[in-house]
Amino acid sequence: MSSNAARVAGRHFLQIPGPTPVPDRILRAMDMPTIDHRGPEFQKLGKRVLEGMKSVFKTANPVIIYPASGTGAWEAALANVLSPGDKVLMFETGHFATLWKNMAIKLGLHPEFIASDWRIGADADAIEARLREDKNHEFKAVCVVHNETSTGCISRIAEVRKAIDNAGHPALLLVDTISSLASIDYRHDEWGVDVTVSGSQKGLMLPPGLSFNALSPKALAAAKKSTMPKLFWSWEEMIPHNEKGYFPYTPGTNLLYGLAEAIDMLHEEGLDNVFARHDRHAEATRRAVRAWGLEVLCRDPKYYSSSLTAVLMPEGHDADAFREKTLDHFDMSLGTGLTKLSGRVFRIGHLGDTNDLTILGALSGVEMGLALAGVPHKKGGAQAAMDYLAECASNPLRAAA
Amino acid sequence: MSSNAARVAGRHFLQIPGPTPVPDRILRAMDMPTIDHRGPEFQKLGKRVLEGMKSVFKTANPVIIYPASGTGAWEAALANVLSPGDKVLMFETGHFATLWKNMAIKLGLHPEFIASDWRIGADADAIEARLREDKNHEFKAVCVVHNETSTGCISRIAEVRKAIDNAGHPALLLVDTISSLASIDYRHDEWGVDVTVSGSQKGLMLPPGLSFNALSPKALAAAKKSTMPKLFWSWEEMIPHNEKGYFPYTPGTNLLYGLAEAIDMLHEEGLDNVFARHDRHAEATRRAVRAWGLEVLCRDPKYYSSSLTAVLMPEGHDADAFREKTLDHFDMSLGTGLTKLSGRVFRIGHLGDTNDLTILGALSGVEMGLALAGVPHKKGGAQAAMDYLAECASNPLRAAA
Amino acid sequence: MSSNAARVAGRHFLQIPGPTPVPDRILRAMDMPTIDHRGPEFQKLGKRVLEGMKSVFKTANPVIIYPASGTGAWEAALANVLSPGDKVLMFETGHFATLWKNMAIKLGLHPEFIASDWRIGADADAIEARLREDKNHEFKAVCVVHNETSTGCISRIAEVRKAIDNAGHPALLLVDTISSLASIDYRHDEWGVDVTVSGSQKGLMLPPGLSFNALSPKALAAAKKSTMPKLFWSWEEMIPHNEKGYFPYTPGTNLLYGLAEAIDMLHEEGLDNVFARHDRHAEATRRAVRAWGLEVLCRDPKYYSSSLTAVLMPEGHDADAFREKTLDHFDMSLGTGLTKLSGRVFRIGHLGDTNDLTILGALSGVEMGLALAGVPHKKGGAQAAMDYLAECASNPLRAAA
Amino acid sequence: MSSNAARVAGRHFLQIPGPTPVPDRILRAMDMPTIDHRGPEFQKLGKRVLEGMKSVFKTANPVIIYPASGTGAWEAALANVLSPGDKVLMFETGHFATLWKNMAIKLGLHPEFIASDWRIGADADAIEARLREDKNHEFKAVCVVHNETSTGCISRIAEVRKAIDNAGHPALLLVDTISSLASIDYRHDEWGVDVTVSGSQKGLMLPPGLSFNALSPKALAAAKKSTMPKLFWSWEEMIPHNEKGYFPYTPGTNLLYGLAEAIDMLHEEGLDNVFARHDRHAEATRRAVRAWGLEVLCRDPKYYSSSLTAVLMPEGHDADAFREKTLDHFDMSLGTGLTKLSGRVFRIGHLGDTNDLTILGALSGVEMGLALAGVPHKKGGAQAAMDYLAECASNPLRAAA
Repeated sequence: MSSNAARVAGRHFLQIPGPTPVPDRILRAMDMPTIDHRGPEFQKLGKRVLEGMKSVFKTANPVIIYPASGTGAWEAALANVLSPGDKVLMFETGHFATLWKNMAIKLGLHPEFIASDWRIGADADAIEARLREDKNHEFKAVCVVHNETSTGCISRIAEVRKAIDNAGHPALLLVDTISSLASIDYRHDEWGVDVTVSGSQKGLMLPPGLSFNALSPKALAAAKKSTMPKLFWSWEEMIPHNEKGYFPYTPGTNLLYGLAEAIDMLHEEGLDNVFARHDRHAEATRRAVRAWGLEVLCRDPKYYSSSLTAVLMPEGHDADAFREKTLDHFDMSLGTGLTKLSGRVFRIGHLGDTNDLTILGALSGVEMGLALAGVPHKKGGAQAAMDYLAECASNPLRAAA
Repeated sequence: MSSNAARVAGRHFLQIPGPTPVPDRILRAMDMPTIDHRGPEFQKLGKRVLEGMKSVFKTANPVIIYPASGTGAWEAALANVLSPGDKVLMFETGHFATLWKNMAIKLGLHPEFIASDWRIGADADAIEARLREDKNHEFKAVCVVHNETSTGCISRIAEVRKAIDNAGHPALLLVDTISSLASIDYRHDEWGVDVTVSGSQKGLMLPPGLSFNALSPKALAAAKKSTMPKLFWSWEEMIPHNEKGYFPYTPGTNLLYGLAEAIDMLHEEGLDNVFARHDRHAEATRRAVRAWGLEVLCRDPKYYSSSLTAVLMPEGHDADAFREKTLDHFDMSLGTGLTKLSGRVFRIGHLGDTNDLTILGALSGVEMGLALAGVPHKKGGAQAAMDYLAECASNPLRAAA
Repeated sequence: MSSNAARVAGRHFLQIPGPTPVPDRILRAMDMPTIDHRGPEFQKLGKRVLEGMKSVFKTANPVIIYPASGTGAWEAALANVLSPGDKVLMFETGHFATLWKNMAIKLGLHPEFIASDWRIGADADAIEARLREDKNHEFKAVCVVHNETSTGCISRIAEVRKAIDNAGHPALLLVDTISSLASIDYRHDEWGVDVTVSGSQKGLMLPPGLSFNALSPKALAAAKKSTMPKLFWSWEEMIPHNEKGYFPYTPGTNLLYGLAEAIDMLHEEGLDNVFARHDRHAEATRRAVRAWGLEVLCRDPKYYSSSLTAVLMPEGHDADAFREKTLDHFDMSLGTGLTKLSGRVFRIGHLGDTNDLTILGALSGVEMGLALAGVPHKKGGAQAAMDYLAECASNPLRAAA
Repeated sequence: MSSNAARVAGRHFLQIPGPTPVPDRILRAMDMPTIDHRGPEFQKLGKRVLEGMKSVFKTANPVIIYPASGTGAWEAALANVLSPGDKVLMFETGHFATLWKNMAIKLGLHPEFIASDWRIGADADAIEARLREDKNHEFKAVCVVHNETSTGCISRIAEVRKAIDNAGHPALLLVDTISSLASIDYRHDEWGVDVTVSGSQKGLMLPPGLSFNALSPKALAAAKKSTMPKLFWSWEEMIPHNEKGYFPYTPGTNLLYGLAEAIDMLHEEGLDNVFARHDRHAEATRRAVRAWGLEVLCRDPKYYSSSLTAVLMPEGHDADAFREKTLDHFDMSLGTGLTKLSGRVFRIGHLGDTNDLTILGALSGVEMGLALAGVPHKKGGAQAAMDYLAECASNPLRAAA
């Protein structure tokens, strides 16, 4: 990927909330000859990744792997368990929840959208209240985004599960974990999720191009009745082949090499250590934001995301002008504000394969970018983050608290 | 991808009709950090590949690039221009035409399938005859596989176009070029194709994971009326973003790095040289088959494929037993016989990034495998291929004839 | 390079004064099949790197490329122009000057070593004085380390040249630029250097394994009279082959692929921009050191190195204990104190392919490591560096001053 | 390494007797960030390769690894155990033995060269006879090339050892295994060799850039008395550092990553299997040569090399014109005839990471090249090789015979 532009030295800081930096081990694992996806060597790989992904989702049920990006896995989740005309209850956590709702409309579903201000995760009480009203059980599914990538707010899935149960409602629970899986604790089976959607390019540390549906027996039963036209996304095409380690059509072979490596790496570090690391970097980032005198978009700590932090710009200052300066001068990519947050927030991704020094380099870049763009702020954000990370290093228990 | 099995020395011979051997230049181009798909560097890449693919399809109209494998592009072609209940005319060239037909059924379409014996390409006369009968123009599309990967027969698309025109029928023409694009001459605009479907892992020399729809203005007009539920495959989502070099959802960034490199490589060699090379290797392979005393599945030279050759096994001999011996002893993958050809044929892929010596190594491997598996044959197939290739080298005009 | 230890997340910070971080472009360029070093494709590569290295040394004379690391190029410099029993004048800038002196002894030369306290570069006046005393011109060469990697002090080569000229002494001038070439301005021809020694793994951004001698006509004349036993290092073996783009024995082919890429990258950025970037990071680092209340080893700004900074530890604190903590907790490698500086200094490498945010991440790591290791210091070093880098970004002229 | 020339499709056939094709696993292992060669992670690597190389040389004594190519290891062998003025007995097996002899002269040694016609390996009887005459034991060493890369003849080292013993001569035995180690059985300790020289780019399947000396206690004792000026090559510098897993100066870190992988791969396949594979490909090649009606340069089967075969051209035909045609038309590199064999032989490398089908592709390329270059020959060489390899596959015992 050489370019004609003057060369920029050093390593780009990719601090968007995904795609995340792909570790060398994973890139190198993918940088190998493509093999016959109908041969015995592939079969071992197929079994390894299909089984391995269960440990990541914390499920004993099948996980479907699509050779497609995350939007496809959203569509797969809806298309397999629902039929045109079905009602679904969705919660407006932000931009991505809105996109998923718009997709539902395109697929001929009838989503009802519980509005919110994009500064918290899904409100379990509101969901429970709405489901209680639905005496005839017209809602066939409840759809929630676990980690809203546009806002840095998480939804507490165990609470959503309880809300559905409290309402005695049979709706399926569909959850998007695209920007949380393998970064923030997630438990498909324990939390009673029916379909979990995810993608490769965030906590799994891969390039984009693979996406996932984790299933439940209830979801599999629902799939039998779905009349939505589909083939590529169809679980019933996938499962019999997957059982033998194969796929019904050409899989993303080289990305699967990388996935096998990523699963190994997650287990080498330990999933709990991975989550704790994300929590630590998120807290360091929020401390920096506060030290700068800026505001975290997420307005309730209960919903803080450990994979990204959205930061509100002071009135009269354009987040994208700041982002552009930061990219030009310090070769760092930050996330833009999406739709109704456009220009009003920037997002700092701190997920995937990263570490303390990279986060501090990134926060230093934000602090310098704010200065350069003339955004009113106090110095000392990176220092505040550093103080916290040094404290965590000297007292690991403190970090976990 | 290390394995616990005893190491097999040397380079695997991947002689299936795709995925094909990925050149080092392409693997290395993909082995680079994933970038922000909403940033300025990506935009240059996006424009480069979107424009570059037009030259490969020989079209001035938009080409859609999906972060998905080829089956998805099949679904996209049907889902964008058709609506549930539509009739389509399809031709049974073989296993993949059958799969596409089955997909049409799953999508709620009503395909009519012109039967054939799997030993020729699509019969333009039969298509014309059927369309002439369709006075009410109930068929909304004619679907043809350009190169039937299960049989090694091509369909002559210019003739199919003429058949539709002769019948004065308004049906759209949809063509699958998954195993022919960038291997066998193909002209989307000149041949009046409305949707051409293709994938990354054959003539484009990439791993699987990208697929394509090349469009016509007529296809775009039809798309406006389609009621098929869809979002991921929807052209109308793609095109406005593509015009600026971006994608509506996360693209397969690293595969796009490879695609940019592949397009460069095709142009460095020259598409006509690429096609001539494939023709040469196909002819060498057929000469080997005949010298062995075996039969090429494709029964009419008019339909010979230049990307693969399917070979009929002598009665009483199992193609898969032979293939397994060849893999075990000579580390070469050959294509299996699919569905009704299972056990009766094996397929030799000779497409993608290959050359004379590799083809001769592969044909030597087939000859040795036949001996090892006890398949009755005459020696001298590899020698016959070598004689032909030596002649081509000494007389390039002869090769082109 | 997988390891059994628990995985450490993120990218290692390699802040030793070389080897330096190898850019992906260079690693990928080397990750290609080895070619025949006697064939026409190699010849193009040979000419390209042999010519390209002249631009890096700023010379019109031949540059020799050894498939060996830097110590070999030291030996080559001495072995080609000197004979056993020859006297040479060397300056004790630090550990590496001492090693070179010890090598001279091993080769049967008689070095005289001008002592120094390892806190400045070579003192041109002292050299001039000693040469003036050498009425019989017994010194055949003056050997100086341009950038003493053990101390972070540079020697001003133009002044050394002038000292030799002022003394009217015919001694050859031999200069080691292993840790300065392509990081700090260097001018082989303009400064009248006879042999410049360098290596691949610092400013050239390559792995170790290549090393260099840049020559002068006077050096070539001296080589004709050398009686030192040698063949591998012999320029006279190299030059006739190099003139045709080849080498007399097997070259380090894959490292040469990387070297070609590195030369391109240096020219894309522009050598002057490369030097200015190193100056900026060195100044930022020194500001951090001062803010911490620590002392830079180099005691005279005239000798400040732009490729590394050695930092004195407060009395009673062990630099290696601090380095070990920093490595364990923050996955950053710092340079150790060598021989007489052992335990008393640590060295921060800020050379090669790096940028502002990486340097700030690294300095944050030092600051946290100091805290963790209980080394008395004031906070605010990383902040001071950041303030300087932000100022440079907002006012490029300031940076250049 | 992109080039401006028209692209050549497919994979280059590198059939020179080294460098050999580097397996992807090894290239990928080297394509990783360079680490601190003084840190704990390096130490593990250092111990792993230093220990691993002992298994490859079949020795319990130290192996020295130089960050230099093979010519350097030749020089190291001579420079560590000999002193200027020493007499050495060398055998003229061919071009490389001659180069080693010339090197000895350059180093101030006095080699005596037992002449031969370059069509056999070292004659143990002649060595014994000469040593018997040397009553005063003036010869300090006997130097023999195990596999003469210029001729394809091996020297039987166990017999040479016996010859020295029979003569009751105390000379050291120095053996060059650059093109045989890890391709042809070799036993440093069992055969009583004092210094074995080797390099990375042949049987070890690495790019060039590492070379080796395997030692004996007698060699180590001799080294103590050597007065040859040296430092880079000095074992006494190396050994104390090696014992801790480190090196006295910067090692070829990334090549060492590859070496660790190569050692693993050799053990995965099993050294005896590696040797048998080379024997098989050598016999197949010789059968091809005979079927073409050409002559193998090595005139006595006792000396046949399993890593390369040199082929005599018919009178009046230029081997290099043939090689050039083969390279141009079939993208295959063959070895040239060296010095007195220039134009009279070409050499087919069949060593390193290769397999039956690649060898058959290569032999097909030779056969087509002979035709194209108008060299008189019979067809059927590749066929003869194929018949042999098919027989080996069907009857592994036959292959081993």
